[in-house]
Amino acid sequence: MFALVIDDGSLAWRERPDPVPGPGDVLVEVAAAGLNAADLLQRRGLYPAPPGVPADVPGLELSGRVAAVGDGVDESWVGRRVAALTAGGAQATHCVVPLEHLLEVPEGVGLVEAAGFPEAFCTAHDALLTQGGLAAGERLLVTGAAGGVGCAAVQIGRALGATVVALTRDGRHDEALRALGADETVVADDLAATEPVDVVLELVGAATLPAVLRRVRPRGRVVVVGVGSGARVELDLLAVMGARLTLTGSTLRSRTRAEKADVVGRVARDLGPRWRDGGLRVPVAEVVELRDGARAYDDFSRPGKLGKLVLTAGSA
Amino acid sequence: MFALVIDDGSLAWRERPDPVPGPGDVLVEVAAAGLNAADLLQRRGLYPAPPGVPADVPGLELSGRVAAVGDGVDESWVGRRVAALTAGGAQATHCVVPLEHLLEVPEGVGLVEAAGFPEAFCTAHDALLTQGGLAAGERLLVTGAAGGVGCAAVQIGRALGATVVALTRDGRHDEALRALGADETVVADDLAATEPVDVVLELVGAATLPAVLRRVRPRGRVVVVGVGSGARVELDLLAVMGARLTLTGSTLRSRTRAEKADVVGRVARDLGPRWRDGGLRVPVAEVVELRDGARAYDDFSRPGKLGKLVLTAGSA
Repeated sequence: MFALVIDDGSLAWRERPDPVPGPGDVLVEVAAAGLNAADLLQRRGLYPAPPGVPADVPGLELSGRVAAVGDGVDESWVGRRVAALTAGGAQATHCVVPLEHLLEVPEGVGLVEAAGFPEAFCTAHDALLTQGGLAAGERLLVTGAAGGVGCAAVQIGRALGATVVALTRDGRHDEALRALGADETVVADDLAATEPVDVVLELVGAATLPAVLRRVRPRGRVVVVGVGSGARVELDLLAVMGARLTLTGSTLRSRTRAEKADVVGRVARDLGPRWRDGGLRVPVAEVVELRDGARAYDDFSRPGKLGKLVLTAGSA
Repeated sequence: MFALVIDDGSLAWRERPDPVPGPGDVLVEVAAAGLNAADLLQRRGLYPAPPGVPADVPGLELSGRVAAVGDGVDESWVGRRVAALTAGGAQATHCVVPLEHLLEVPEGVGLVEAAGFPEAFCTAHDALLTQGGLAAGERLLVTGAAGGVGCAAVQIGRALGATVVALTRDGRHDEALRALGADETVVADDLAATEPVDVVLELVGAATLPAVLRRVRPRGRVVVVGVGSGARVELDLLAVMGARLTLTGSTLRSRTRAEKADVVGRVARDLGPRWRDGGLRVPVAEVVELRDGARAYDDFSRPGKLGKLVLTAGSA
């Protein structure tokens, strides 16, 4: 197989031995792989792969067709169109994935769009529901709403019956975010004028969190899953105590196989029907060939995109 | 009645109109009132009383005898020895308290010691169990363990079957903390050598929290209820995400009457039998007459004490 390989902070397209699926795993011939902020951190050496995952091949989600199955997996899986959450290694022509981390791609959904589904929707679903305890009728603020996880969170929040406030850098995607389900849109400079919220999905980090914390209602929950603007913030503990806030940091990657299976299972159960009905979308901002992946990495932090950057392996 | 009154950052002993119990309330003739860090903050103007509570009479817990009852409260309460969680106003000769915020003081427990029970044990119980989800077999770190809430937390953690690590400034009370139930004791400088913990009760604030956060296991819960050393800390969000930590700020005072009743009810249910059996103790570091309360406030922040400072109204 070929893979996008991190070599001292740079990316190269290199040949690697074909991976072999173990018991309970499948081998996916990758059609496309989503690009995520965590990949950029990994390239910079700031987000090492967990044990058992190739240390130098990034990629936390993919789509493609099952090419082979390991022991204990039904042969009928071969040839099926799947998307998967991975612990790394997705930015390659082939990738081994545990069967229970697969999502079947609905008919009518292309594999490019499907490649951007697993990480964004699993992250947003876990953060909003399992970590944040978001309930119908509550106000949800999503920072970095134009990004991949942000677009997913806006749709999940709306589907759940929350009032969704989408915060972006400059408002240029407000119309698209309203179409996805945002009830209100706001730019960071105007945040102070927004009515307080119950739950925050923080996808930006240091640039937004201090102002965000001042807009959280008593007993609010702030779930931090992205820190692209910086990770160091000053916290006023007295304010956190006074409002009885909870701040939870979360990441999917370091979780055990069973924990990830649990997240994927919840997404399949809660969001699968809506994905099949066309009620959930993955806006794709840019598609780049995997072998040119370095270019996509450079584009990732450039402002102005809506949704995901997807790398294609040629079989999409 | 007479009360300790905050007047522009100072404390004075002044006469005030006698309070009258409303429906569902009792009037307590105060025997003693515990002193808490929140009172010091209130004196400095940093912790305003919630609506409906006298703004200038501090005091969040008391013991005494019921002197009168409001509508709907059985007359048989009159004369009973009680302790109570209050939203303020306890540092006076008389205080009105909702019936459901009372705890009956066990026979054999003196009213001085009882005055230091409600705030410390309600705060610690709520923080450890309701906010922190502490479970048997987990490792609990209590910072500021020699303080009133700290001594309560050590005892509750032990009773729950957790392994309790008590952190103090200088270790001078290590023996007493082990007698209360600490399995291990540590001073702040040696924290890095301690085995990581699952739950932290942070009672000190800025001076300890950054080092504490480096000793928390993945999925750990940090509950902040005290910030005597300072409230501003720099947080590394990437570390919080990587370890999937939850940081919760909590305070009892701002809660509704029903929420407080819930906390008091849990304490009565979970800890009442152990309090009656002599299995829970309130170490009292110093007893000062209420009318000399200013002196106790000055002593509060002086290092070296174990347990509570209690102010007595003369009827103890």
